[in-house]
Amino acid sequence: MEKDSEQMAETTNQQERDMESNSLHQPLLKRNLTALSSSPLALVGAKVSYIESLDYEINENDLFKHDWRSRSQAQVLQYIFLKWLLAFLVGLLTGLIATLINLAVENIAGYKLLAVVQYIDNKRWRFRAWALTVHVMPPVMMRTRKYRAWILSLTVRGLNGYMMGFLYMTGVNFILTLIATVLCVFFAPTAAGPGIPEIKAYLNGVDTPNMYGATTMFVKIVGSIGAVAAGLDLGKEGPLVHIGACIASLLGQGGPDDYRIKWRWIRYFNNDRDRRDIITCGASSGVCAAFRSPVGGVLFALEEVATWWRSALLWRTFFSTAVVVVVLRAFMEYCKDGACGLFGQGGLIMFDVGGVPVRYHVADLIPVTVIGIIGGVLGSLYNYLLHKVLRLYNLINAKGKLAKISLSLAVSLFTSACLYGLPFLASCTPCDPSVVDSECPSTGRMGNFKQFNCPKGHYNDLATLLLTTNDDAVRNIFSTNTPSEYRVFSLVIFFILYCILGLFTFGIAVPSGLFLPIILMGSAYGRLLGMAMGSYASIDQGLYAVLGAASLMAGSMRMTVSLCVIFLELTNNLLLLPITMLVLLISKSVGDCFNPSIYEIILELKGLPFLEAHPEPWMRNITVGELADVKPPVVTLSGIETVGRIVDVLRNTTHNGFAVVDSVGQVSEVHGLVLRAHLLLVLKKKWFLQERRRTEEWEVREKFTWVDVAERWGTIEEVAVTKEEMEMYVDLHPLTNTTPYTVVETMSVAKALVQFRQVGLRHMLVLPKYHGHGVPPVVGILTRQDLRAHNILSAFPHLEKSHASKKGR
Amino acid sequence: MEKDSEQMAETTNQQERDMESNSLHQPLLKRNLTALSSSPLALVGAKVSYIESLDYEINENDLFKHDWRSRSQAQVLQYIFLKWLLAFLVGLLTGLIATLINLAVENIAGYKLLAVVQYIDNKRWRFRAWALTVHVMPPVMMRTRKYRAWILSLTVRGLNGYMMGFLYMTGVNFILTLIATVLCVFFAPTAAGPGIPEIKAYLNGVDTPNMYGATTMFVKIVGSIGAVAAGLDLGKEGPLVHIGACIASLLGQGGPDDYRIKWRWIRYFNNDRDRRDIITCGASSGVCAAFRSPVGGVLFALEEVATWWRSALLWRTFFSTAVVVVVLRAFMEYCKDGACGLFGQGGLIMFDVGGVPVRYHVADLIPVTVIGIIGGVLGSLYNYLLHKVLRLYNLINAKGKLAKISLSLAVSLFTSACLYGLPFLASCTPCDPSVVDSECPSTGRMGNFKQFNCPKGHYNDLATLLLTTNDDAVRNIFSTNTPSEYRVFSLVIFFILYCILGLFTFGIAVPSGLFLPIILMGSAYGRLLGMAMGSYASIDQGLYAVLGAASLMAGSMRMTVSLCVIFLELTNNLLLLPITMLVLLISKSVGDCFNPSIYEIILELKGLPFLEAHPEPWMRNITVGELADVKPPVVTLSGIETVGRIVDVLRNTTHNGFAVVDSVGQVSEVHGLVLRAHLLLVLKKKWFLQERRRTEEWEVREKFTWVDVAERWGTIEEVAVTKEEMEMYVDLHPLTNTTPYTVVETMSVAKALVQFRQVGLRHMLVLPKYHGHGVPPVVGILTRQDLRAHNILSAFPHLEKSHASKKGR
Repeated sequence: MEKDSEQMAETTNQQERDMESNSLHQPLLKRNLTALSSSPLALVGAKVSYIESLDYEINENDLFKHDWRSRSQAQVLQYIFLKWLLAFLVGLLTGLIATLINLAVENIAGYKLLAVVQYIDNKRWRFRAWALTVHVMPPVMMRTRKYRAWILSLTVRGLNGYMMGFLYMTGVNFILTLIATVLCVFFAPTAAGPGIPEIKAYLNGVDTPNMYGATTMFVKIVGSIGAVAAGLDLGKEGPLVHIGACIASLLGQGGPDDYRIKWRWIRYFNNDRDRRDIITCGASSGVCAAFRSPVGGVLFALEEVATWWRSALLWRTFFSTAVVVVVLRAFMEYCKDGACGLFGQGGLIMFDVGGVPVRYHVADLIPVTVIGIIGGVLGSLYNYLLHKVLRLYNLINAKGKLAKISLSLAVSLFTSACLYGLPFLASCTPCDPSVVDSECPSTGRMGNFKQFNCPKGHYNDLATLLLTTNDDAVRNIFSTNTPSEYRVFSLVIFFILYCILGLFTFGIAVPSGLFLPIILMGSAYGRLLGMAMGSYASIDQGLYAVLGAASLMAGSMRMTVSLCVIFLELTNNLLLLPITMLVLLISKSVGDCFNPSIYEIILELKGLPFLEAHPEPWMRNITVGELADVKPPVVTLSGIETVGRIVDVLRNTTHNGFAVVDSVGQVSEVHGLVLRAHLLLVLKKKWFLQERRRTEEWEVREKFTWVDVAERWGTIEEVAVTKEEMEMYVDLHPLTNTTPYTVVETMSVAKALVQFRQVGLRHMLVLPKYHGHGVPPVVGILTRQDLRAHNILSAFPHLEKSHASKKGR
Repeated sequence: MEKDSEQMAETTNQQERDMESNSLHQPLLKRNLTALSSSPLALVGAKVSYIESLDYEINENDLFKHDWRSRSQAQVLQYIFLKWLLAFLVGLLTGLIATLINLAVENIAGYKLLAVVQYIDNKRWRFRAWALTVHVMPPVMMRTRKYRAWILSLTVRGLNGYMMGFLYMTGVNFILTLIATVLCVFFAPTAAGPGIPEIKAYLNGVDTPNMYGATTMFVKIVGSIGAVAAGLDLGKEGPLVHIGACIASLLGQGGPDDYRIKWRWIRYFNNDRDRRDIITCGASSGVCAAFRSPVGGVLFALEEVATWWRSALLWRTFFSTAVVVVVLRAFMEYCKDGACGLFGQGGLIMFDVGGVPVRYHVADLIPVTVIGIIGGVLGSLYNYLLHKVLRLYNLINAKGKLAKISLSLAVSLFTSACLYGLPFLASCTPCDPSVVDSECPSTGRMGNFKQFNCPKGHYNDLATLLLTTNDDAVRNIFSTNTPSEYRVFSLVIFFILYCILGLFTFGIAVPSGLFLPIILMGSAYGRLLGMAMGSYASIDQGLYAVLGAASLMAGSMRMTVSLCVIFLELTNNLLLLPITMLVLLISKSVGDCFNPSIYEIILELKGLPFLEAHPEPWMRNITVGELADVKPPVVTLSGIETVGRIVDVLRNTTHNGFAVVDSVGQVSEVHGLVLRAHLLLVLKKKWFLQERRRTEEWEVREKFTWVDVAERWGTIEEVAVTKEEMEMYVDLHPLTNTTPYTVVETMSVAKALVQFRQVGLRHMLVLPKYHGHGVPPVVGILTRQDLRAHNILSAFPHLEKSHASKKGR
């Protein structure tokens, strides 16, 4: 076999550092950085990073075959046992960390609120003394100077009480936000946001760097506690999902990057396929821990997060979530008697309406439909506006770390001011005499009828909703059998406030979930709608709030089955199921008419090359051959290649897979695909040959183990090769994946995409339809980037035109 | 292009009528017919039939491209609308038919039981009169002859009452069984059994003939009513799933085979891909209708039935099940006031324990684990024994229609005798005074404390369980807060009886579901276990019964998530969720150690070539090239072929796909794959050319529409071609799928199988690794049959050996 050095060098890649060389990507780089959807760059924690694809293909090279044949029965059993053990540990740790977060949030926020209430109480007492004085004292005395001064000081001290409460709350919130944002900005930018889109991308085959490290997890935990306790309009649900995935990833690889346990058995899982499975378990456990919804967690992973699914995975994620539930239940049992400070039952079951009798008739289908439609419209509107806000925020965040911190703190100040100030706008409502005395008005940190600035026997309904944790706010607004608790005015203010906060809080640099803001908005509008229906509807207003929350979530996140189960498990009321289903289906359908789901919008904003499940219709009109044609001509390696050329190719391209071609006489035939990682491995281990020859199988096995092959081996810059070595040879055959998945050049992109996504590929070889003299044996190598609709459309604008004219736009 | 007539004829196939020609399949045909797993034959309703694969691949030929380009925006919208309309109709009709079945069963079985109770009541009255007479009359009078005769007649009439009740019940059951079995045997043999395995196979890509026709559906409905009302130990759940699939299939194709609506828009769905989606909807709706469990229905389809899944499907099945639930709820509302005879609330929610407070602690994990382990062992034991029984039954059923009917009737007689006779073994229990008078003892058709042969104030606990419908039996055994209701002796008899009935009823020729027999067995053993635990456990005995049923189902059917949700929705008690999850997981794990799930066993018994999700480990040691080598040499068609050769190939092979090869000079290149159906289409429409030439695109379009291409076109025997026509030519290019999915011959079977199953293929072309002179352009065509583990092992016995030695057997 001779090296065909005349052959044009062509390869394809994933990790395109040298962007200018790729005509397919080029036009898109001229767009602004906030819409990087078409490049291999992604917004990772507001910084642009290079991203890499994952490899789920079975790499059938000589070493792999050896690996497989050498695995004994005991090793196989050990592997299965370890997989289950990992699933167990993922569930256990996620459950423990979720409990920790809930414990911390409930206690920090609880003591904060108690202190604020105390300030207000003092103030209220003083105010009452003042009012008494003013009213009771004979008018003559009021004219004396001393008396006036006394009144004034009382007034000032009374106001001071309010002011002190405000300052205290704002200050504490400010500090908590500061901690969260500083951690995020300086230590783990990837910890900002919910993390769910990145997990979704990971399971689709896109590895976002620094996403699942130990630092990220730590920052996510502490940051989430800080941000939620600071009363910001964000949830701990999304972060919990990310934390679950981090735990899974860390366990799977045997510890943090720098301190990995290098035990042989843990290295069984050092491959992309097993990591994918474990991270799916982690994500399910996270959802389960967030909502205490084991089946909902599994379904969330299935419906929203995972790209590939198999029933063994269904079973294993189910096991993980079962463990989470047992852990959570055990802790709640333990904390019931007050052993955990202010924890109580808080933070877990938020909206249990299991005891509420639900009655509805056919006539109630009308309000249910209305909720669904409005939820869909509002949800898609929210997606649209959030997209705009996030683009704006990206511009601000790009200005540097200080800008990011300032933005977070500004949002925190604004939130605190609104939460504390707005209740003064609401007028006091007298307590319903049928309510137990100790419940109305309440002055503690919880309770459905907060006294705040009101006189005895009255409560401030807006304070009930605002001066509390978000979880309690949801619980209060979901409360049933309280038809006249809230005034329309208060709910309108609440709704508007949370619309604003929901839009402007999400993009700041703290760990933030999307579930809770949407639930808050949705519940307000649902309850308002329930009040508007008045006596027409037989459904309780609290249930309207639940349905409103469900509809807005479906309208924005576009999930149905998993949301339905989550709501079923949250509300613990099976009778609600049919109407919840209807609401969810209607909202999702309506929302889908306008724009994609919020997660897809964020994925696009971040520039993560997510492969959609369905090919676009116009993809049937273009073949993979045409796609390969617009890429630069091919670079290939020979079966036995010089070290110099390998180094050259690795240095001058950024591709991660190279076609290996053998030439026999005139005809050249493709031998397979070799990965950049394996070439680097060869260079690092200096497995060089003096002469151009084929190696024996034992030679390879002596040098490499199958464990080496599964890992990734740094960059070409770390490799030092001497000039003499440059002249030596490498036999690539044993390291080449001899059976990469292939398609023929005449296949439509639509059909190729189905194979690419279904089989979970990283590289797809395009073979020529007709072989013969002068025809290269490989027409091209397609990757994820090449198959993305956006990229194809920029290379073939006429497709977009025909597409648009078809759609009648 | 010249016709290369020297080339050896090789093709592959699905529908292997000429079995002897295929060396791969041959060795297996010598096995007995009950283990047909390796041939394209399948047991269809106890008769051996030829089965065919479905084609989910996008057929990229010229007509298809035309089809796609000609679809307007309006047509696309219409298509989407119709898809949703179909999902709606599937839900609606499944709901209606489920209601109809429940209505019929409850009324027929109800009036039957009432009549039996009446006979017994009369008898009891007479018996009491007799006892009174014997005891009260002075002994002297007893010696008179007339008196003796009177006593005797009273005794006989008393016994006659029991006997009459027995005869009545047995007779009615006999007639009902007769109706069901005669319908099944004579009109629709495919309607026997649950139908779930066949649906599972369909969604995997195997079309069982006559499975989804109108006759099958009708027989299934009537037969199911008859069999369930006859008190046989079988459920209506499995049949409902099949009925749902039938409805879906009939709607999708526009009516029964002979009376299809030929509207253009309904023909949109005349392709395998859309039918697959609709049938998935139907199966989900069926499960939902059976258990009133919408989410459980969706998950059942996802976990157990479907092979391919995508989130759009999740959503659409969810919509269907929502419609089913609304229909069921509406009917229950309507029937609540007695408008539906004896229907009441019966037949739907069977095991509602929503109001029961569930308490359990960490200590209860032990009994829960025990239930899980025993459930797993019993479940796999049941699978093992049922396999044996079904093999025996297959032998009996093969003897003819009379044998099948006799078997069913014998089972019916045995069941009736046991149900009526065994309660006499149980001793009477005095009623608990705390129970309301009207409840104990009850003499109606329902009730938890049946009087049967007992004196006033006593009840017969075994009669409570046996002399009732299966649904009520489950309700009674699940009943909570009745710790001392059942005696151990009665429960043991009940358990043993239903073990025997469960094994021997399933295989008879009536529509029969597996869910209910397993639930009955499981609940008995669960309750027994609960009694054995005694005061140690804090869980109610009724809940033990629920857990026992769950464990046995998981142990036999090996589902987890869907069963969990079904049980959640059945019991309507969220607090049970964590322990149900644990039980299910343990049972499934234990069961998996012994044998595959019951559905897989039935699939194998029926000989349906189901493709498993995971390749066997040893499949990595064999390449597709080796597989293709052991098949007979290749038969190919030229791009422009004579009619004679096409007819010849179609007559003499049974393959459904043929490789089309073009020869340019010395080199021959593969053009693509043409389907048997399309060749038949050409022959039927006589699209012949006088000379050997390529056709223009408009010529094809003039002759064929894309609707023609999607359908299947009879057999070659129906085609008449004259001798002159035999000499003419056909241009196969426009009808050839130019881009079949291909693999290179060096790929391992494991890897090829992943692609085959993930993409949903029918034919997979194997290409040579090295092209050159004398190398055929296609090495082989692999189908489902070739990739099945069993078939490969019979062709390559050494693999099995290495496999077995690895496993340490």
